[in-house]
Amino acid sequence: MKNRILSREVKDHKGEEVLMQGWLHKKRPLGGMVFLVLRDRGGVMQILIEDKSEIEKLEGMQIGTVLEIVGTVTEEPRAPEGVEIHNPKITVVLSVTEASPIEIDKPLGHKSDNLDTLFDYRVIGLRNLRERAVFKIQAEVRNQVREYLKSQDFTEFSSPKLLPGATEGGAEVFKLDYFGKEATLAQSAQFYKQILVGVYERVFEIGSTYRAEPSATPRHMTEFQTIDVEMGFIELQDLLHLMSGFMNFVIENVWKICEKELAMWEATKPILAKEIPQITMEEIHQKYSAANEQQTIGEKDLRPDEEKWICEYAKENLGSEAVFVTDWPKEGAKFYHKFKDDNPEIAERADLLFRGVEIATGSMREHRYDILTKQLREMAGGNPDSDGFKYFFQAFKYGMPSEGGFGMGLERLTQKIIGLANVKEATLFPRDMNRLAP
Amino acid sequence: MKNRILSREVKDHKGEEVLMQGWLHKKRPLGGMVFLVLRDRGGVMQILIEDKSEIEKLEGMQIGTVLEIVGTVTEEPRAPEGVEIHNPKITVVLSVTEASPIEIDKPLGHKSDNLDTLFDYRVIGLRNLRERAVFKIQAEVRNQVREYLKSQDFTEFSSPKLLPGATEGGAEVFKLDYFGKEATLAQSAQFYKQILVGVYERVFEIGSTYRAEPSATPRHMTEFQTIDVEMGFIELQDLLHLMSGFMNFVIENVWKICEKELAMWEATKPILAKEIPQITMEEIHQKYSAANEQQTIGEKDLRPDEEKWICEYAKENLGSEAVFVTDWPKEGAKFYHKFKDDNPEIAERADLLFRGVEIATGSMREHRYDILTKQLREMAGGNPDSDGFKYFFQAFKYGMPSEGGFGMGLERLTQKIIGLANVKEATLFPRDMNRLAP
Repeated sequence: MKNRILSREVKDHKGEEVLMQGWLHKKRPLGGMVFLVLRDRGGVMQILIEDKSEIEKLEGMQIGTVLEIVGTVTEEPRAPEGVEIHNPKITVVLSVTEASPIEIDKPLGHKSDNLDTLFDYRVIGLRNLRERAVFKIQAEVRNQVREYLKSQDFTEFSSPKLLPGATEGGAEVFKLDYFGKEATLAQSAQFYKQILVGVYERVFEIGSTYRAEPSATPRHMTEFQTIDVEMGFIELQDLLHLMSGFMNFVIENVWKICEKELAMWEATKPILAKEIPQITMEEIHQKYSAANEQQTIGEKDLRPDEEKWICEYAKENLGSEAVFVTDWPKEGAKFYHKFKDDNPEIAERADLLFRGVEIATGSMREHRYDILTKQLREMAGGNPDSDGFKYFFQAFKYGMPSEGGFGMGLERLTQKIIGLANVKEATLFPRDMNRLAP
Repeated sequence: MKNRILSREVKDHKGEEVLMQGWLHKKRPLGGMVFLVLRDRGGVMQILIEDKSEIEKLEGMQIGTVLEIVGTVTEEPRAPEGVEIHNPKITVVLSVTEASPIEIDKPLGHKSDNLDTLFDYRVIGLRNLRERAVFKIQAEVRNQVREYLKSQDFTEFSSPKLLPGATEGGAEVFKLDYFGKEATLAQSAQFYKQILVGVYERVFEIGSTYRAEPSATPRHMTEFQTIDVEMGFIELQDLLHLMSGFMNFVIENVWKICEKELAMWEATKPILAKEIPQITMEEIHQKYSAANEQQTIGEKDLRPDEEKWICEYAKENLGSEAVFVTDWPKEGAKFYHKFKDDNPEIAERADLLFRGVEIATGSMREHRYDILTKQLREMAGGNPDSDGFKYFFQAFKYGMPSEGGFGMGLERLTQKIIGLANVKEATLFPRDMNRLAP
């Protein structure tokens, strides 16, 4: 028995007889012949069938039919890879006789009003080469994130997602019945990654995060993957240096490895400065207000339109499609944020904007036990000795260095790399308040 | 300002003045001098303090105090790395004045009756070098698992853990309130990995799995990490070949990279056959019964003691501490298992036993839509058109090749590699029916 050859390998076997296995992806009759496209994990390959008895085998066979094909690799300049298979002997391994509910051999619809259809048929739709490419890219983003962080001496961990009642608060939490008691699902790995700075200094997790967001917008999901990164013995500029290196490394390598997949989406490689430029929030307000006949000076947050605008500005004037927003006002800060020594109204925080939206929020954390305790009480009304906080505070009571970190949504990053409109398009099986399946 | 040097790098700087940052790990006065052990992410380093004014700085300073030290690297044959730091100038960066609730500079207790104490003080206990080593090893196991699977052309994915009501059933599920409806937490990635064989052929996930196990045994947790692997266009022997390669690759490389950490636990490198030997369940029953004056012939499962015994047997007679148990009877099979063509009472299943316990369960899956539908109805009383099953069945309706896969607990694998008695010892922050914190 011959060894199986994948679509991507066929071009290296010109003139040889090869064995292929895969799915019927497309079937096109043309003047007594049939052009068959076979799909496997390596791509697709065109097969020219002229023999009547072979053509008959495919009668009634629909997309998805599992085939085994032995044929000869023949040069064909008009074929995508420059080769196709001639004189095939076909074995129908598993026949599919029901027509596919969606056409998978052409780009699937991605307009906002048919996204539900996209997700309803996700199981089959992912067999479309362009959809499949999205999660090949995402897998590579994940790889490169890990490669970079490992190169910087980070240790990977996984934190529990089942938590007792009180968490860091803020967004909505999912509650579940835990043997008669109440448990909640983790909204972030924040406390665990900080605790582990006390052990490994540099840690990261790529894990699930849950938010009971009662809104089904293009930006919100109830379950997503967060890249959580935290490091000790640093200052804010060290963190931003790391994040700059991270972005450059990931983009550079994903573009190298996923060239073909990115081309399917006509994705353009982001322009990034080696050190991503930093702009204070107030500076953005000023520039934006001056340029747009708007008045945002003094506002405590960025408007969505400002995020878009400053990214355009940075691309044109600073040579970077990513930009850090620094100097965030205390309003909207978390109790664990660190504030400037010379201005306690300003958090040592820097959000990373990329192609018009925030993709990461980074900050220094207050690491001094007494001050952290005070901030918990004053900013969040929490008690450091309560069940929800006592373990987190243990780490600080017994010594933590100055530290900081960031959280970045994996799907959001994938979305912006490819240029998708909705974060759910970059999610295999998205979850929002209206969707729990497939 | 000097660059910071880590403990593990000190030996390369003999005679130089270096800057170190870390935690006070141990302090031992000896005849007017103080031996200080500093901990950082690279290990620990001994510092000899003779200068009175430097010694005074450490008065009242407890374990965990964050220090910055500038001193001279000096050869000292009696020191673990052959070097120590002399003439230090010490800066107390953050003082800890409360004594640590547990001693972290000596091995922590791991007996079954003090495991609760171990986990209650986990946040601080992980700062013990031996505890820290466990999750360094685990991180490397994770790395090597990924490396191996990537080398075999597998694509990594992440599946949702928030699911609608009906899942594959069997063990208990956690239920949660999802905007007024009921949702459940994923008990496995089984359906998703099978669906994705239709897309990528070879897929894997290392993700969280939830079981509402109402028992707090050394083998059960409510949340754990599963390595889920699935591949198409294969037969059972291809799967077992992959699993053999997987085990050999992971063990070989983890032993190379984590030599020091494994030595802390006096872990012995497992003996593994290149192709892990296969024994049928009935053969095990026969051998065990003959050797142990027991009668298990004809039983439909292995007794825990049989699992231990056959592993010992395989180690001594087959040169392998891992062994596959094949030919499982239909009792206890899942509806998605494939049964032998020539004997429908026997599942095409092979569990992997390693050092006395099952660490993975592998099988071929029924991929023919009609037969799978029949098995769902007959074995699980399920309806392929119901909300819980319809997406899974879509994948088969529109064409799936012969396929199989396995699931393996990451914590269990880590446990057996190191030789820990309880799977929770190989879990950063374990969860069982009695424990939701830290």
